[in-house]
Parts: sequence; structure tokens; C-alpha cells
Amino acid sequence: MHSQSQSSLLHQTQILRQAIRNKSHTGVTSGLAQGAMQGNVVILPADWAHDFLLYCQKNPVSCPLIGVSEVGDFTMPELGNDIDMRHDIPEYYVYRNGEKVESRSDIEDLWQDDMVAFVLGCSFSFEHALSQAGLTPRNIEEDVNVSMFETNIATVPAGRFFGNTVVTMRPYVPKDAIRAIQITTRFPKAHSAPLHFGSPQEIGIADLNKPDYGDAVNIKEGEVPVFWACGVTPQVAIRNAKPPICITHAPGKMLVTDILDTDLAVF
Amino acid sequence: MHSQSQSSLLHQTQILRQAIRNKSHTGVTSGLAQGAMQGNVVILPADWAHDFLLYCQKNPVSCPLIGVSEVGDFTMPELGNDIDMRHDIPEYYVYRNGEKVESRSDIEDLWQDDMVAFVLGCSFSFEHALSQAGLTPRNIEEDVNVSMFETNIATVPAGRFFGNTVVTMRPYVPKDAIRAIQITTRFPKAHSAPLHFGSPQEIGIADLNKPDYGDAVNIKEGEVPVFWACGVTPQVAIRNAKPPICITHAPGKMLVTDILDTDLAVF
Repeated sequence: MHSQSQSSLLHQTQILRQAIRNKSHTGVTSGLAQGAMQGNVVILPADWAHDFLLYCQKNPVSCPLIGVSEVGDFTMPELGNDIDMRHDIPEYYVYRNGEKVESRSDIEDLWQDDMVAFVLGCSFSFEHALSQAGLTPRNIEEDVNVSMFETNIATVPAGRFFGNTVVTMRPYVPKDAIRAIQITTRFPKAHSAPLHFGSPQEIGIADLNKPDYGDAVNIKEGEVPVFWACGVTPQVAIRNAKPPICITHAPGKMLVTDILDTDLAVF
Repeated sequence: MHSQSQSSLLHQTQILRQAIRNKSHTGVTSGLAQGAMQGNVVILPADWAHDFLLYCQKNPVSCPLIGVSEVGDFTMPELGNDIDMRHDIPEYYVYRNGEKVESRSDIEDLWQDDMVAFVLGCSFSFEHALSQAGLTPRNIEEDVNVSMFETNIATVPAGRFFGNTVVTMRPYVPKDAIRAIQITTRFPKAHSAPLHFGSPQEIGIADLNKPDYGDAVNIKEGEVPVFWACGVTPQVAIRNAKPPICITHAPGKMLVTDILDTDLAVF
């Protein structure tokens, strides 16, 4: 049973996913269908799946698994009963032997019978909770993609996968950062509390105005940058592991699921 | 029913309170009988009690009430069945008309039939939880009193009581500060999460090496100061309200209760 507002959100979600599927929406999904969990996507051949599963298990803050498909199955019924992993992401990245060779809006002709799709929780899930608390993330205020940076924080290697953590950054004054830490702690499946705040250099970020993915945002007087683990982290590990083929979402352009963010919140 | 470790802690607590009562312990109580809740103390004539109660109610983070005595009653059975508020604090401050006129180890001869004693939660309660998580506060490591500072953060006035917030400061690297925010959030009756971190100037603190109460501690490379509300806050309000007489604990020299910190933790 869903409440009326839940039904209305489910309806929004399905309209958005339909718009993504028919390519009328190809942009970022931050701030859209707020309240519905969004996911990072990694699609790998089955003989790479165990290593990647282990990598997620060892790095649950960067890589909080919320869905894994059966081998060869492009549906994801646990996250939405009409999801088709070949069409439902606004933009896909295609990696071959660890190199990004292509970005495209559909992967129907690349899908293989041995592929396994992984969906990982995303910080956009807690952005809704932050906004409701009056702490609207700057990227939503400025209507841009969140800033993402590669750091010097190593993940735990697993099989052929290894690399440093990617983080998202949202600026807050300290008082609001403390509240944001409390709020995001409630979302273990969406990267939970931040990894770091303050000095970007300390975690290997040279320039906050030059994100590795996404867009730069304004940092106001008195604000400190706050850094959360990001589901783009696996893309670094994929570049290192060099599987023959791997397909991911483009950073900021996520799978929109029918799961409610609040269903995954603790406390 | 108490577990064996609880019985042992209760025993420690009673030995410590006895040592305070017979004046063989007159120092700070930080780090002692860890696990037993300690309290800030304010003793006022009955005709000032309502205003002060309201002040606490309006400022629950600075002034988390854990006990209020009956008028004229110097016991505090809800916090420990042998507590005597006239003897059980290592050092008392005596304020007359808002001025501190005396500090003394016993107030038996100052006790009046119309006095009401208030006990407020103290950040020492969460220091135990921080230490257990490997985040031992610097003041405990250095075996000194915690650093306390008057800030420019106004409390909500009530009746004749008003003034700025006093904070305690503990330095941490950002990653540990985030964990400390999570841990202390569990203790709403012990000032909960910090009010601020980073720039001391932003909250009106000129020099971290010159605390208004307690001792300075070392801040290491890469650490940021983290500031929690402190139960010394009422002493500023008392100086402003100028009651004819008011007796408090000396900062860092607390009432040690038989209540367990964990009994007051949430989550």
C-alpha cells in the first residue's frame, strides 16, 4: 500500500524513467523525482562479476550495492518492475580494456548474454533529505551537476579492482555541515556521512573549481567544502582493472528507481 | 538489576563521591568514573527557580536538565541515593548579585531552606563514548581540564536570565570530527552534537590558547577545533541576572551521579 504522496512520486518516477527511455531527457537526474532512490550503474561480463561484488562488499561506503541482476538479465525487478538496464540511463559510458571509448544514450546493441548489472546507491538520495531540512545542496540551487573529485583515499582492493575514492562536494557553513553529517548518517545505502571536510589538499584535491566530473559550484564566505564518497568510485577501479568491456552511467545521470529514499533510511 | 561491570562502576562512583565529600579529591572529574554521568550544578533561591527552569527549557542544548531538587532539599535521589548537594562537588563557586565572590569546597553553612538545586548534563558523559571509539579527547590524553570559551552565540533569554553560550573545545582531524559528531549526537542530555567546528573567530573566540575556563590543549597539524555547548553557560546568565545568591560547581569539577551515560544515550 502506498500513501497518496507515495503514489504521486511513483507516478513522477515512471514518467521520468519513460522520458529517459525515449531520450527526451538526456541530462542529469539530480533534483528530479526527489524522494525516489537513484542509482549508480556498472555492467560487467559475468567472469568479472565476482571480483566486482567483492570490491563492493569491501568498500560499502563508496559502493553501497542496492541491486544485482541475474546473468544476462537486463531487468532489475527489485528496484522497479519495468526497469530495462539497456535504455533507462540518460547517458552511458562504454569502457573497453579500462579506457572510456564512447558515451551513448542506449546500449541495446552492446548487451551480451553474459552481462551482470550492478546498481549502487547515490548521494542524490540524501539530497532530498538535506533539502527538506533547509540545507538544499548548492548544485541543486545552481541547477548544475554535483562536483565530483578523485581523491588520494585508497579503496580496499578486491581481485582485479583497485583505486582511489571519488567524492562529491557540497559546501556548508560549519553549523549546517554538522546537521548535514547527522542527516546523511541516516543513509548507509547512499554513502552515509561525509569522509572529510575542510582542506581539499588533505585528500589530494588540487582545485575545487576544477572537478574531475560534474560542475563547479560557488563556495560562499564562511562555508567549508564537505566531501561524501561517490558511486563514481568504481569507474576508477574499472580503468585500473581493464575488463574487456564495462558499461556505466555517466556521472550525475543515474538510474531512477521506484524505491523510496526513506525506505533505506535508518533511525 | 545491574551487570557486574555496572556494579563495579557504581562502586567506583560511590568511592569517588565519598572522596569528594571528605575533600580528599578536590580536582577536576574529567576522565574519572568513566561511564557514570556527571552534572553541572546551579543552586538558586526558590523565587529565581522558575526563571531558571524556563531558561533551561529554552536552551536544551546548553542546559540539558537531568535533575531538579525539591525546595530546600539538598538530596537528589533521582541521580544517586546518597547525594548531598552541599558537599558532593569538589569545588563550588559562590555568586552574589552576579559577582563571583568566593570559591569553596563545601556549602553547608550557605544552604538556605528556600534553595533549589539544578543538575545539567555535561560533555564528560560523551567523552567516555568518544574514548571507547578510539577518539580520546585531548584533555583526557593530556590529563588537564577541558578548554572552555565564551562565544558570541546568544542563548534564548528567559525571565531575568540571558547571555552567550559557553563551549568546550576538543581538536580532531576532520575524519574523526565526523565520527565524533555521530557519536555525540547520541547524547542529547550531554549537549549532543557540536555547535561549530573550524574558525574560532567565527563564534567570537579570539585565542584558543587562552580558554576562559579550564586549560589549553595542544592542537596538532591537520586538526580542527570542534566546539560543543557547555553547562557553564548558565554561569554567564547568572552574572547577567544577578540573583542575590547563586552557587555553582567550578568548571570541570562536577557532580558525579549514579546514572549511566548509556542510560541517556539514544539510538
